[in-house]
Amino acid sequence: MILKSMPNQPQRLDQTFQALADPARRAMVERLSRGPASVSELARPLSMSLPAAMQHLAMLEDADLVRSKKTGRVRTCRINPAALSRAEQWINQRRAEWEHRLDRLGRYLEMLNNDGGENGADE
Amino acid sequence: MILKSMPNQPQRLDQTFQALADPARRAMVERLSRGPASVSELARPLSMSLPAAMQHLAMLEDADLVRSKKTGRVRTCRINPAALSRAEQWINQRRAEWEHRLDRLGRYLEMLNNDGGENGADE
Repeated sequence: MILKSMPNQPQRLDQTFQALADPARRAMVERLSRGPASVSELARPLSMSLPAAMQHLAMLEDADLVRSKKTGRVRTCRINPAALSRAEQWINQRRAEWEHRLDRLGRYLEMLNNDGGENGADE
Repeated sequence: MILKSMPNQPQRLDQTFQALADPARRAMVERLSRGPASVSELARPLSMSLPAAMQHLAMLEDADLVRSKKTGRVRTCRINPAALSRAEQWINQRRAEWEHRLDRLGRYLEMLNNDGGENGADE
């Protein structure tokens, strides 16, 4: 039960990226980044029925990208920045790795150059 | 045909996020961020058969996250940083939006405070 309510990091990332792999769900996240909205406010610009919108919302909530709260008859949705940050962080770490590698490659080529060596590498 | 070889931006993002929604494919991207690798080098740490690895690679190549080139009998794979940057950029734009909104909210609350007004907002 704990495992179900608290998925581990890789599962979380699976769900986050999966949730973002759809243009309607990204449009909802875009809208919610600008402020909270009701389900019908989210559905309207997408020309989508309420049940269809709620299905997309369920995926966003499962991925913890969106949280919602019902007050009276209106369910208000909010973005959860922490979930997007996890995805951002994963990409940032990859960027750090390849930039580090390019730096090393650059230093190596410079060293070869300073030694007066010729190199035929094309990258 | 042009549409097929040059997917538009939303389709691209669909493919990118979809490709990243799997731990094995993320492990491949993590490995390739540290430098080029052959298909078997990618498959080995994942305890995966070559055909299974190639299926995951095909998804990464469709999303343009990875590019590969066959030389003799060895296919060498490389990361395409531009594709990851597109995903990163989309998330960054969302962050910019919600931070802008929080700034505005902060300024509003400060203004209320300076006016000596009480506010009961809980965020």
